[in-house]
Amino acid sequence: MDEIIIGVDIGGTSTKFGLVDPFGHILAEGTMPTDVYHDVDLFLEYLKKEIDVLLARKEYRVKAMGIGAPNGNFYTGTIEFAPNLPWKGVIPLAAKAEKLFGVPVKLTNDANAAAQGEMIYGNARGMKNFIMITLGTGVGSGIVVNGAMVYGHDGFAGELGHTIVDPEGRMCGCGRKGCLETYASAGGIKRTVFELLAQEHIKSALRAKSYYDLTAKDISIAARNGDPIALKAFDMTGKLLALKMSDAVAHTSPEAFILFGGLSGAGDFLMDPLKKYFEEFLLPVYRNKIKILFSGLQDKNIAVLGAAALAFSE
Amino acid sequence: MDEIIIGVDIGGTSTKFGLVDPFGHILAEGTMPTDVYHDVDLFLEYLKKEIDVLLARKEYRVKAMGIGAPNGNFYTGTIEFAPNLPWKGVIPLAAKAEKLFGVPVKLTNDANAAAQGEMIYGNARGMKNFIMITLGTGVGSGIVVNGAMVYGHDGFAGELGHTIVDPEGRMCGCGRKGCLETYASAGGIKRTVFELLAQEHIKSALRAKSYYDLTAKDISIAARNGDPIALKAFDMTGKLLALKMSDAVAHTSPEAFILFGGLSGAGDFLMDPLKKYFEEFLLPVYRNKIKILFSGLQDKNIAVLGAAALAFSE
Repeated sequence: MDEIIIGVDIGGTSTKFGLVDPFGHILAEGTMPTDVYHDVDLFLEYLKKEIDVLLARKEYRVKAMGIGAPNGNFYTGTIEFAPNLPWKGVIPLAAKAEKLFGVPVKLTNDANAAAQGEMIYGNARGMKNFIMITLGTGVGSGIVVNGAMVYGHDGFAGELGHTIVDPEGRMCGCGRKGCLETYASAGGIKRTVFELLAQEHIKSALRAKSYYDLTAKDISIAARNGDPIALKAFDMTGKLLALKMSDAVAHTSPEAFILFGGLSGAGDFLMDPLKKYFEEFLLPVYRNKIKILFSGLQDKNIAVLGAAALAFSE
Repeated sequence: MDEIIIGVDIGGTSTKFGLVDPFGHILAEGTMPTDVYHDVDLFLEYLKKEIDVLLARKEYRVKAMGIGAPNGNFYTGTIEFAPNLPWKGVIPLAAKAEKLFGVPVKLTNDANAAAQGEMIYGNARGMKNFIMITLGTGVGSGIVVNGAMVYGHDGFAGELGHTIVDPEGRMCGCGRKGCLETYASAGGIKRTVFELLAQEHIKSALRAKSYYDLTAKDISIAARNGDPIALKAFDMTGKLLALKMSDAVAHTSPEAFILFGGLSGAGDFLMDPLKKYFEEFLLPVYRNKIKILFSGLQDKNIAVLGAAALAFSE
């Protein structure tokens, strides 16, 4: 009988789940909407139905469950005031899931889950000190020190996306100004493109797209075609990300950064300026020794794997 | 026979040392110059002579030795490329001291030693997650996560003084621009005063002082007399320190910050703007729960205590 962990990755629009074996193989997986369930209990009941279908295929022994969710608190097992989820206030999700599924449940935020996945199954295997940065709709992070996730005093450590690039900078969804997320996320690079389109007097294919239509992928494609605005946008994005990553080094001095998510799919267009500016911004004592890597699980469902890894590691 | 640890705090101009009991009492202490010893072995020999004088007063059992020094590396016991010390390159100080004193020696950087002292004997007692910031000639820091000092992959973690406020900002001794240290140290607030004297058209007693003559203490005294330039300088210093402290929270989410050193002697002139801006700059999830405290060992020799605590804790 195969021993498995249920890994769940709750996102704003959809939730992914999978049955994960101890070697990091996802034996079965599925997806369901999140945003249609305004009641968290209904959401969990539906999730259980979906997972029961996967579990019925074979004889599994379910050891535990790991959940990654925005604003997930590892210490309390609660989701707290998540702006992108339909459930308001403080939701005791781990307790509810434990009751419903009858197994131990561990919960953390999605970027921490990704870091856990990377540490156990990905490019951070064997690393004791690294920082995971997820570059997607937002910018998330998970910090590992001495082989353990940093949760901090309140369970909410590791929000590099909300370190401040410029206190007079762009409005952020968090209510403050100039957070890294407003520059280095998929939406951030789009804002940079629009700033550059306004500022520069250069031809660019990107001038044909509305703000609604333009995607980070469009910017990557334009960069591949040599579009100067797209290339400059990647340069600026790499520079500001490098600035805040160099600050992060002055905190926990990691061996490596692991980048994951939509924007990291831009490959060298992002990595080249990032690496260049990163070394320039680093305090000399840290130079030429910190790796910047893309995730080793880019094509896999890293958050499901990571959530499972979280439960395995406990 | 009293069991003691020898605590040593190596600074650029002078070195302090003391015999510390397990309860954090300094039973005997002394000081000697650092900068006259261009040979590190001569320095250590003289240090041994001085300490032997203290040890001869009573029958002590020396358990170990702890040393705090700029650019001290906990992992390797070496001092590496310390710009403010007379010994160049990589100095295997712990190994040399072990040989000479015949006891186990632990070495770390001075701010980490201060954090260790605060954790064991000061205002951070019982705290598992806090950040120590020393506001002196430079800005140093020690980060504690889960009850343990963060040393990072290379032993050099915790350099908040070299996080970047403004990449186009003031020249820093480290060779880069805009480090927090160029704003929030004793020298930093002096630079801020000179910037304000140039910029503003306001009477100020500080206009009577040359750059060489002006001290952080002068600025505190002027602030106490209601000098508008001095008050504005403290406001700006508090704001920029708050900005980078709020970034630090987004890394390790501490329970408290502990401030120590010359600039923290400015009391409310620094603390009032610092606390105000800190809450403004914090990501909402962190607001109203992080303490900012002055050191509980301000009048004691915290670095000597801390270096001893380091050796005790091993």
